[in-house]
Amino acid sequence: MPDALPPDAVSTDYKPLLERIAADIAPLLGSGTPAEYIPALAAVDPGQFGMAIADLDGNVFGVGDWQVPFSAQSITKVFALALALAEGGDSLWERVGREPSGNPFNSLVQLEYENGIPRNPFINAGALVVTDRLQTLTGDASSEVLEFLRQESQNPDIGFDAEVAASEQGHGDRNAALAHFMASYGNIDNPVPALLEHYFWQCSIEMSCADLARAGRFLARHGLRADGSRLLTRSEAKQVNAVMMTCGTYDAAGEFAYRVGLPGKSGVGGGIVAVVPGRCTLAVWSPGLDARGNSVAGVAALDRFTTLTGLSVF
Amino acid sequence: MPDALPPDAVSTDYKPLLERIAADIAPLLGSGTPAEYIPALAAVDPGQFGMAIADLDGNVFGVGDWQVPFSAQSITKVFALALALAEGGDSLWERVGREPSGNPFNSLVQLEYENGIPRNPFINAGALVVTDRLQTLTGDASSEVLEFLRQESQNPDIGFDAEVAASEQGHGDRNAALAHFMASYGNIDNPVPALLEHYFWQCSIEMSCADLARAGRFLARHGLRADGSRLLTRSEAKQVNAVMMTCGTYDAAGEFAYRVGLPGKSGVGGGIVAVVPGRCTLAVWSPGLDARGNSVAGVAALDRFTTLTGLSVF
Amino acid sequence: MPDALPPDAVSTDYKPLLERIAADIAPLLGSGTPAEYIPALAAVDPGQFGMAIADLDGNVFGVGDWQVPFSAQSITKVFALALALAEGGDSLWERVGREPSGNPFNSLVQLEYENGIPRNPFINAGALVVTDRLQTLTGDASSEVLEFLRQESQNPDIGFDAEVAASEQGHGDRNAALAHFMASYGNIDNPVPALLEHYFWQCSIEMSCADLARAGRFLARHGLRADGSRLLTRSEAKQVNAVMMTCGTYDAAGEFAYRVGLPGKSGVGGGIVAVVPGRCTLAVWSPGLDARGNSVAGVAALDRFTTLTGLSVF
Amino acid sequence: MPDALPPDAVSTDYKPLLERIAADIAPLLGSGTPAEYIPALAAVDPGQFGMAIADLDGNVFGVGDWQVPFSAQSITKVFALALALAEGGDSLWERVGREPSGNPFNSLVQLEYENGIPRNPFINAGALVVTDRLQTLTGDASSEVLEFLRQESQNPDIGFDAEVAASEQGHGDRNAALAHFMASYGNIDNPVPALLEHYFWQCSIEMSCADLARAGRFLARHGLRADGSRLLTRSEAKQVNAVMMTCGTYDAAGEFAYRVGLPGKSGVGGGIVAVVPGRCTLAVWSPGLDARGNSVAGVAALDRFTTLTGLSVF
Repeated sequence: MPDALPPDAVSTDYKPLLERIAADIAPLLGSGTPAEYIPALAAVDPGQFGMAIADLDGNVFGVGDWQVPFSAQSITKVFALALALAEGGDSLWERVGREPSGNPFNSLVQLEYENGIPRNPFINAGALVVTDRLQTLTGDASSEVLEFLRQESQNPDIGFDAEVAASEQGHGDRNAALAHFMASYGNIDNPVPALLEHYFWQCSIEMSCADLARAGRFLARHGLRADGSRLLTRSEAKQVNAVMMTCGTYDAAGEFAYRVGLPGKSGVGGGIVAVVPGRCTLAVWSPGLDARGNSVAGVAALDRFTTLTGLSVF
Repeated sequence: MPDALPPDAVSTDYKPLLERIAADIAPLLGSGTPAEYIPALAAVDPGQFGMAIADLDGNVFGVGDWQVPFSAQSITKVFALALALAEGGDSLWERVGREPSGNPFNSLVQLEYENGIPRNPFINAGALVVTDRLQTLTGDASSEVLEFLRQESQNPDIGFDAEVAASEQGHGDRNAALAHFMASYGNIDNPVPALLEHYFWQCSIEMSCADLARAGRFLARHGLRADGSRLLTRSEAKQVNAVMMTCGTYDAAGEFAYRVGLPGKSGVGGGIVAVVPGRCTLAVWSPGLDARGNSVAGVAALDRFTTLTGLSVF
Repeated sequence: MPDALPPDAVSTDYKPLLERIAADIAPLLGSGTPAEYIPALAAVDPGQFGMAIADLDGNVFGVGDWQVPFSAQSITKVFALALALAEGGDSLWERVGREPSGNPFNSLVQLEYENGIPRNPFINAGALVVTDRLQTLTGDASSEVLEFLRQESQNPDIGFDAEVAASEQGHGDRNAALAHFMASYGNIDNPVPALLEHYFWQCSIEMSCADLARAGRFLARHGLRADGSRLLTRSEAKQVNAVMMTCGTYDAAGEFAYRVGLPGKSGVGGGIVAVVPGRCTLAVWSPGLDARGNSVAGVAALDRFTTLTGLSVF
Repeated sequence: MPDALPPDAVSTDYKPLLERIAADIAPLLGSGTPAEYIPALAAVDPGQFGMAIADLDGNVFGVGDWQVPFSAQSITKVFALALALAEGGDSLWERVGREPSGNPFNSLVQLEYENGIPRNPFINAGALVVTDRLQTLTGDASSEVLEFLRQESQNPDIGFDAEVAASEQGHGDRNAALAHFMASYGNIDNPVPALLEHYFWQCSIEMSCADLARAGRFLARHGLRADGSRLLTRSEAKQVNAVMMTCGTYDAAGEFAYRVGLPGKSGVGGGIVAVVPGRCTLAVWSPGLDARGNSVAGVAALDRFTTLTGLSVF
């Protein structure tokens, strides 16, 4: 690896690194296709790219469109999971597994073979169970997630995108099928329409790479929030990272681990959050997706990051 | 985590740590069931337990039955994969995927839906492809694996167990089905009976925790062999670790990542090899298996290791 | 076959035959279990049994509880199919197949592999498509089916059972999942809640064996209704019978063909309608179901019928 | 149906009917594709067509290439089934089901979900079980089938085609996979290589439409052989016809019942045998296959037959 930077080069100022990564992946901008099933997402300019790194000391470095808000989509599932664990504890795992699914994110097949218990909290079915749990625990699941993101990112302007939420609702038959299907197995506690509404609102949250890198810092800090209070135990934080590693990028978790080698969670808005435990959190965004729903330039940028720094967990 | 040892306590002498782990998991000895489908394995004393750690300097520490040879079984798949990559390069990945399977290790279902391309090199179908590739590259796949293990462990006494190999052959219909099935898709190059023979011999290799920890050291050393020569590039070593993390423990990879948080590969003989990249390699063995084919005491010991040392990758 | 009656014995008066069948199957009464998922059905007395035969001349013969109304449930799917074909023609087959499913009646698995096109009109998914089509064609699918049944049976008292309909609605998550799932593939035209309501009302229709035998006579008369007008072409009537033969009894169509050898359609209320083309229509009812949802005594009575008369189509 | 012949027109001389059918389907000759996976079959002239009808009195009528031998392939499965039932009785059904599969003829998926019990005797897996049973009962399964066909057709020249058998063996990995897979569940008694050999020889039998119509007459005669002796009970004959109806034409049994409405069994050689119980047996042959492996012109000719005569069982 002749192009690996020395370790100390990455410990203080990530700005030059980010600029090099941005230059390296520039040829990929515009590759892939923005998510098409939600009109509001399909309309986004595919040539955008942003990346941010938040270190443990509270510094945030960025490049490109790192301060432009985008639709967080499935990335919010990490935060919903952390909140459901923080507020309700381990019993969540009786209702959702921790294994990779080997199937597309919205498949019903495995759900049927496994009697309504979703494989993990990051496929849609599992995320619906998490939101259902959070709704029971807090009475307002989507607001809970939004509030947490605002606090951790210290950005009170983060908000829902009503147009995106409506668009998801209007194309929500597959998620409605998943929710009703699990309800038929007794694995949904709240009324399906209310659950779906919270789920769609949660997915519609808009935030920038800067916000996202800050908000995910508790995963690099072994469970400690921005204000120093503890959200998750050290073990729980490790566990969330582990689930991200094995299940965080749809049906491409193996590929992501192979190329990037970091716990990460992607969204069809083109964003990805990744964690270097004990060191920093990364957020990257570019709307063009590959066939499995992950940002083409985003994955490439993270790949570049671990190649240049050697900071893969492997 | 009140019981975590300070980092420097683990950097020199792992012996006290191993003894503490052995004491902690002692209540689990005898739990689980030795593999029953191979008579030669079913007869083993289930109360045995051994664990070894090999550091980057060549030191090996052990506890319990760490020098007792056991049947390596699927653990050999890691070494076959490394050798196939070292000798034949990346083209292997055209014939086998890198994604977790979401199915039992010997399932044919996914193989059919995906036209004879196994999900990853650690389910049986994928391991058969790797052995097929290694056989084409070297002309004697099973000897190649054996020879590598002898060299890396510096133990020329490591050998095949003819009784186990014969027992596997006698119960080999499922593997024969997998091999013929892939052959029907054109994904097997060698004659199926010869391939199966090499596969069964490879699985029958007997070695101890001490041997295994030494032999797996190249994965902690980013691809460097015991003699300092390079087996895999830094990238390839990272990739093998990543595949172990997402696919190394049958249908429990998510659970293993969640509890242990290290790349690992288990075998139905009750052994597991795990890697702390850049630090050390662990080998553990206890014959009692859980429902998904992983050693009960072995997983617990590795869980204990990462809890006590904080050396999980997450 | 020492107990086969001579052919002419069955051509005029079916009463003695029905009495013999009722005596023969008496030991089975109370076997099996009434459908449990709908409380209103679970409460029925499992020892009841009725059977009726309607010949082409308009005569109806009966035995036992042949005039007691029961919940027709899935049997109504035959009538909905006939009406959808009569009013909308062959284009229905672009939205639903004609092949046996090889899966339980409410499975989503095959639906996913086949992109939202149900295998046949008698599994729940297919019946939802048929009801959706009938709703589009008529504006009031469930009333259309009810009205047809009243006319053909000449019994204006046939009606919906509001309690059963409400009970199905209350346990309707699986059907809601199926409908939303197909809607996600664009294979449902009407709003899902309205569609489900019609579907549940249709299933709740109460009628007796006498009513059912009369109502199904058009299938024995190659498409001619009670009043002599044509509902289906001769070809279409043959086709509906064929679909009943290969798909009419859930995942036991092969078994039903093997034992009974007549086109038939069963319901979880314990009723079955069967057709001897060109000769007569049979209706049988007994609430105890086997593991695949077909009436234990009902199937046995039909088996007895074809054994005694030789009137199997095979 | 303005073009239906009066019933009595079909009772004596089928020759004019066959000529009319041949004329009607002439435009289809050359449609479809001969089976390609066996080179010896792919080489056949696709424009050939023959059809024969054998009535209960022993008369045989034919048209076109009705005396040209072709590769019987899967059609032999009917005869193997009848022989296995005749010689071993009902216990066969403990090892193979009677339900349509809902999957392609050589799928392993359902076999895995159902623990090595094939869905029916006409998919490859089920036929292998039948041949395995016949081999255990007789010691020479393929010769037993051949001898039966010679006797029933009164044609001692019917024989195996060694080139086809060798070609099947050479492309036999999928069937080897099926056999080993079932052996892994304990559902194969004979050594897999010997079983496969008998299976491939059986499939290679060459016979003409004239031979086939004669040989299948016992199914129209409720179990009586050509010499008046009883092969199957009336019930068993009915049952074989029922299994043909629900499972005889691969994954198109529903379609075949819908269009033709007769029990039938097809082979990838382009032949089909069909039964009008109590009346006659039909054999048709034309090499061009549709996407599901059934003869295009053959199905059309049978469809024409039931349309013209009204002799569908429905």
